[in-house]
Amino acid sequence: MSNTKDFKIAIAGLGRIGKIHLGNLCQMKGVQVVAAMDPLEEGRQYAKEKMVPNIVSSYSEMLEIGEIDAVIICSPTNTHADYVEMAAKAGIHSFCEKPLDLSLERVVEVLEVVKKSGTKLMLGFNRRFDKEFRKVKELVKNGAVGEPHLVKVTSRDPGAPPISYIEKSGGLFLDMTIHDFDVARFIVDKEVVEVFAKGAVLIDQAIGEVGDIDTAIVTLGYSDGTMAVIDNSRQASYGYDQRVEVFGSQGMVQSNNNFMDSHKLYNDKGIHAALPLHFFLERYQEAYRIEIMDFIKSLENGNEMPVDGNDGLQSLKIGLAAIKSLKENRPVKISEIFCE
Amino acid sequence: MSNTKDFKIAIAGLGRIGKIHLGNLCQMKGVQVVAAMDPLEEGRQYAKEKMVPNIVSSYSEMLEIGEIDAVIICSPTNTHADYVEMAAKAGIHSFCEKPLDLSLERVVEVLEVVKKSGTKLMLGFNRRFDKEFRKVKELVKNGAVGEPHLVKVTSRDPGAPPISYIEKSGGLFLDMTIHDFDVARFIVDKEVVEVFAKGAVLIDQAIGEVGDIDTAIVTLGYSDGTMAVIDNSRQASYGYDQRVEVFGSQGMVQSNNNFMDSHKLYNDKGIHAALPLHFFLERYQEAYRIEIMDFIKSLENGNEMPVDGNDGLQSLKIGLAAIKSLKENRPVKISEIFCE
Amino acid sequence: MSNTKDFKIAIAGLGRIGKIHLGNLCQMKGVQVVAAMDPLEEGRQYAKEKMVPNIVSSYSEMLEIGEIDAVIICSPTNTHADYVEMAAKAGIHSFCEKPLDLSLERVVEVLEVVKKSGTKLMLGFNRRFDKEFRKVKELVKNGAVGEPHLVKVTSRDPGAPPISYIEKSGGLFLDMTIHDFDVARFIVDKEVVEVFAKGAVLIDQAIGEVGDIDTAIVTLGYSDGTMAVIDNSRQASYGYDQRVEVFGSQGMVQSNNNFMDSHKLYNDKGIHAALPLHFFLERYQEAYRIEIMDFIKSLENGNEMPVDGNDGLQSLKIGLAAIKSLKENRPVKISEIFCE
Amino acid sequence: MSNTKDFKIAIAGLGRIGKIHLGNLCQMKGVQVVAAMDPLEEGRQYAKEKMVPNIVSSYSEMLEIGEIDAVIICSPTNTHADYVEMAAKAGIHSFCEKPLDLSLERVVEVLEVVKKSGTKLMLGFNRRFDKEFRKVKELVKNGAVGEPHLVKVTSRDPGAPPISYIEKSGGLFLDMTIHDFDVARFIVDKEVVEVFAKGAVLIDQAIGEVGDIDTAIVTLGYSDGTMAVIDNSRQASYGYDQRVEVFGSQGMVQSNNNFMDSHKLYNDKGIHAALPLHFFLERYQEAYRIEIMDFIKSLENGNEMPVDGNDGLQSLKIGLAAIKSLKENRPVKISEIFCE
Repeated sequence: MSNTKDFKIAIAGLGRIGKIHLGNLCQMKGVQVVAAMDPLEEGRQYAKEKMVPNIVSSYSEMLEIGEIDAVIICSPTNTHADYVEMAAKAGIHSFCEKPLDLSLERVVEVLEVVKKSGTKLMLGFNRRFDKEFRKVKELVKNGAVGEPHLVKVTSRDPGAPPISYIEKSGGLFLDMTIHDFDVARFIVDKEVVEVFAKGAVLIDQAIGEVGDIDTAIVTLGYSDGTMAVIDNSRQASYGYDQRVEVFGSQGMVQSNNNFMDSHKLYNDKGIHAALPLHFFLERYQEAYRIEIMDFIKSLENGNEMPVDGNDGLQSLKIGLAAIKSLKENRPVKISEIFCE
Repeated sequence: MSNTKDFKIAIAGLGRIGKIHLGNLCQMKGVQVVAAMDPLEEGRQYAKEKMVPNIVSSYSEMLEIGEIDAVIICSPTNTHADYVEMAAKAGIHSFCEKPLDLSLERVVEVLEVVKKSGTKLMLGFNRRFDKEFRKVKELVKNGAVGEPHLVKVTSRDPGAPPISYIEKSGGLFLDMTIHDFDVARFIVDKEVVEVFAKGAVLIDQAIGEVGDIDTAIVTLGYSDGTMAVIDNSRQASYGYDQRVEVFGSQGMVQSNNNFMDSHKLYNDKGIHAALPLHFFLERYQEAYRIEIMDFIKSLENGNEMPVDGNDGLQSLKIGLAAIKSLKENRPVKISEIFCE
Repeated sequence: MSNTKDFKIAIAGLGRIGKIHLGNLCQMKGVQVVAAMDPLEEGRQYAKEKMVPNIVSSYSEMLEIGEIDAVIICSPTNTHADYVEMAAKAGIHSFCEKPLDLSLERVVEVLEVVKKSGTKLMLGFNRRFDKEFRKVKELVKNGAVGEPHLVKVTSRDPGAPPISYIEKSGGLFLDMTIHDFDVARFIVDKEVVEVFAKGAVLIDQAIGEVGDIDTAIVTLGYSDGTMAVIDNSRQASYGYDQRVEVFGSQGMVQSNNNFMDSHKLYNDKGIHAALPLHFFLERYQEAYRIEIMDFIKSLENGNEMPVDGNDGLQSLKIGLAAIKSLKENRPVKISEIFCE
Repeated sequence: MSNTKDFKIAIAGLGRIGKIHLGNLCQMKGVQVVAAMDPLEEGRQYAKEKMVPNIVSSYSEMLEIGEIDAVIICSPTNTHADYVEMAAKAGIHSFCEKPLDLSLERVVEVLEVVKKSGTKLMLGFNRRFDKEFRKVKELVKNGAVGEPHLVKVTSRDPGAPPISYIEKSGGLFLDMTIHDFDVARFIVDKEVVEVFAKGAVLIDQAIGEVGDIDTAIVTLGYSDGTMAVIDNSRQASYGYDQRVEVFGSQGMVQSNNNFMDSHKLYNDKGIHAALPLHFFLERYQEAYRIEIMDFIKSLENGNEMPVDGNDGLQSLKIGLAAIKSLKENRPVKISEIFCE
């Protein structure tokens, strides 16, 4: 199976997302997963089942294996910046799950290192590879709705993560809404200049006790007057809700959720249909596959990364502006968010 | 309100449908309802409330009032043929609820009388005036689906009528399916040449005991190879189900039911929506209004009747062929159905 | 037809909406339209066709006719307050198209007069009588979505009114969004405490030149943390867009537009369906009928008005807060809006 | 990777379907594809890429490799019976693509051999593993629609196969409709007793010239009065159309097509949506995976085959009855179809 021309990949972190990426990589032609790293036995065991030849428990050890073209970073958020930096310094491209870091200063720093190294960095904003969001993007880009005026992103999770996770997550805007900020940028392809965030604790008081919110409406203003609005909830009783609507001068396009099946049951109580796919693993299963494939292809062809460091930086800035807006109860300009 | 140029209408029979027609006529400009007839006090009382000037209990008496341009016949089926005939002989146009008669011989006879009289006759196939069926017809006519290959008519009632009604109704095919035969003819605009009917008693054994069926699938063959299939049930637990689908060489068009409202409720059990409008009075409310308006307009403009005696005759023939087919368990040609 | 027990109605203003109300009133049992007023010949002519016995060109003249139980006020906005006041002083109930006035002071003043007079006042927020909004309200009220967390109102017109109209309209928020403010109050049944409005001129620069906007996103905060967001456009290429979505602790309910018909056409280009009903006259035809019927019934039964003066006052306050918010680019509390 | 406890599979025929099965088998845990056979170099090359250890060009040679637990037969239809028979005699289980054979006599013969051998045989009716059909089946089985009265199967291909294929296919009913016959049996779980088939050549005269039809409506009668109707076309301009509807005493359930994406584009022409997934490879991709997995699992657990030889036999009988019905233009009883 080994082939000297194969693309050689290492993977760091074999939690939920790491396993998905590893599974997808194992099925790609022209790709060899040469190394995997996880501090936990359970993760390493998974790599073993997938017959990864080099399995280690430390990231630096993995980088020393040599001949690695790119590394896939799926370890906890607080390792992302360091791991990307280390890879860049070793001349290794990296794909990193979002966010690169919760600190703007650190993100700017790492991007600088990557830039100097000449390596490539892709960020894991997986929704850009979902067929629904892509279709909306394609139609907007092709002018099917004319000039975009209003963008509406609905993004609700089926349930909140544990409080222990929320505490370290950077809060709703950096943990969850950041995907929606990226979607808003992706679809309209213009920069956001102002943010107004409204939020509340309506689901679980414990979330409020650790200083976070669980429900929000965020309004974004783009440079040219286009407006976007995102609504979030940590807990939708009916499952994962991921929709987008773009209204423009010539029309409107909507994408819907993906459902478990298409059945409609008619009885004397009403008409009944199946719920949306439960959560991101189900909804974005195919998006994850395409995402990692696009990363590899872009490297092979020397193309621009489909989602680069700047995309991560901009969404982080929007998120930080949203945090400030919520705190100060006023619209905040992106230009107010800078490294001190 | 009276105006010598107004169109003068008499109405016979003020049951469920008669009331609807009278209500609609009372709101039409240029129309005067000059007389109403019903053997029952309850019907005459309704006419009184609507301020009809001449209210009688016998049809012949009503025709003698004079100056009647047209009569709307909504009395029981077994009076239709006689009433149309009497109107024609008096030089009065008629609109008659379907069917004209359950006997082919009698229908042919009456149509002959009408023809000789020079009066016009319209039959009340109300679905031709429903916006859904009209849209399908219009699209098919405009070639939106190319050459029609397959037509599918779904027609299910929310509940069976009383056995006493069923006994005299002429049976499922002449009472209920006859509307669907007309829809099949209306949409494709070609004549049916062969019928195969399959039926069963699945809802109520009492229906079987009076020699009728409550569930059926009828296949129709048109002269050019186009095929249609109708499915019927006397009792759909979820309400009135009236859909049509036309598949052709270039596409397909479907019409759906009309629903009570458009809401969708998402909860942990699924997604729930409202049922179809309950029955024909709700679903075809607007169709009845347009139907009677079209009758008047066509008379005023000297146009062809939108549904004429021949339409009634052809649907009756298809119905009689279906009855024969069911009885003999074989496809029956329309040419086998003729006056003896 | 005259009956001493009939409810006697006068109508002021026979423009587009006045004609609709008159038409509906003429078909109601137990109601007599005894007088109509319009300064224009065209309006008076319409009343004549509807056989209104007293037709005048001045409002005060009409009130002097006597024996009027209630007046329907559909005249231009700048007459509303005076006409309601005059009716109240004459002991006549009134139904008044929204808004009562664009000035908070004047509205408070008029409501005071009405209160003292002991007469009833209903305001014409017609959407409360639309089956879609009612169904959403009913489901929310019955707890079908649990506690409401997020309300989303989409409200887009098919085309902007003439600039001459916009100039005097009070602006987007008082002319158009005020309906949406009322919907947001109607559905959640709690008071709004804070408003943040974002707006832009994206459709027609001429609208900007008269100091108005044509596109907006308005976020509302309720007293208990519930949030609502309204998006508006003066011009949707695909027609009138009127939807609402309520997300709550136990589920979500959405209402959709009403469409011209239900057809779906499948061809090699895609699947195609009909557009929404064009504008408010089509969409809210039935709502207008129910609205005026509810007004009469509530008077007859001595019930509370289904939409009263306070409803008008609250929506006006939200609108004024939205105007202030847009101007000052900050969230504005309703408590900041008061009579000076 | 080799494991003595692994299930050892051989595969015969690496055309379109063979490749899909091989691809799916390669990703299954506990399964080893130990041998592949294809008379064509192209098929063998595919097996090589998938690293199948033994690759041969003759079926008998493959069976001699030894230690094969089961064989997957995806070779041309005219080899199916022989290959299943040979496997059975060698004590090897088989999964065989439908149909086992076009001759009833040969099918009965082979099933006898399989029975005596004690091996298992599964037939490749892939739709039984599609989530849409399974959901309908599950709901019907659980009584969600009460007693089934009417079953409607829509089955249309996006384009006809080459005439050379059609000539040897056994005709529309045995090549295409046989899947729908199986669906009708699968969903209702009762035996069909009578068939009436109506067909025409409406798409391509060349199809008629080789004695086949391209458009059909087939009505099925079950033993208890339940009826089913299938409509077929070899060419739907809008793609692959695979729907089912079951109407019963307590409700109705429908399954729909699966679409390319969920977008809706609103513009001044109408509302536009994406087409169904193009053809069976796209629509049933996941069904193929589950099908082969169920085969393996059933063997491992010693369970009944999810689709067995009798299922193939019954659908073949319905197909033969349909052919006879079309030829003789009369309903044909399944009991008329027997080995001579």
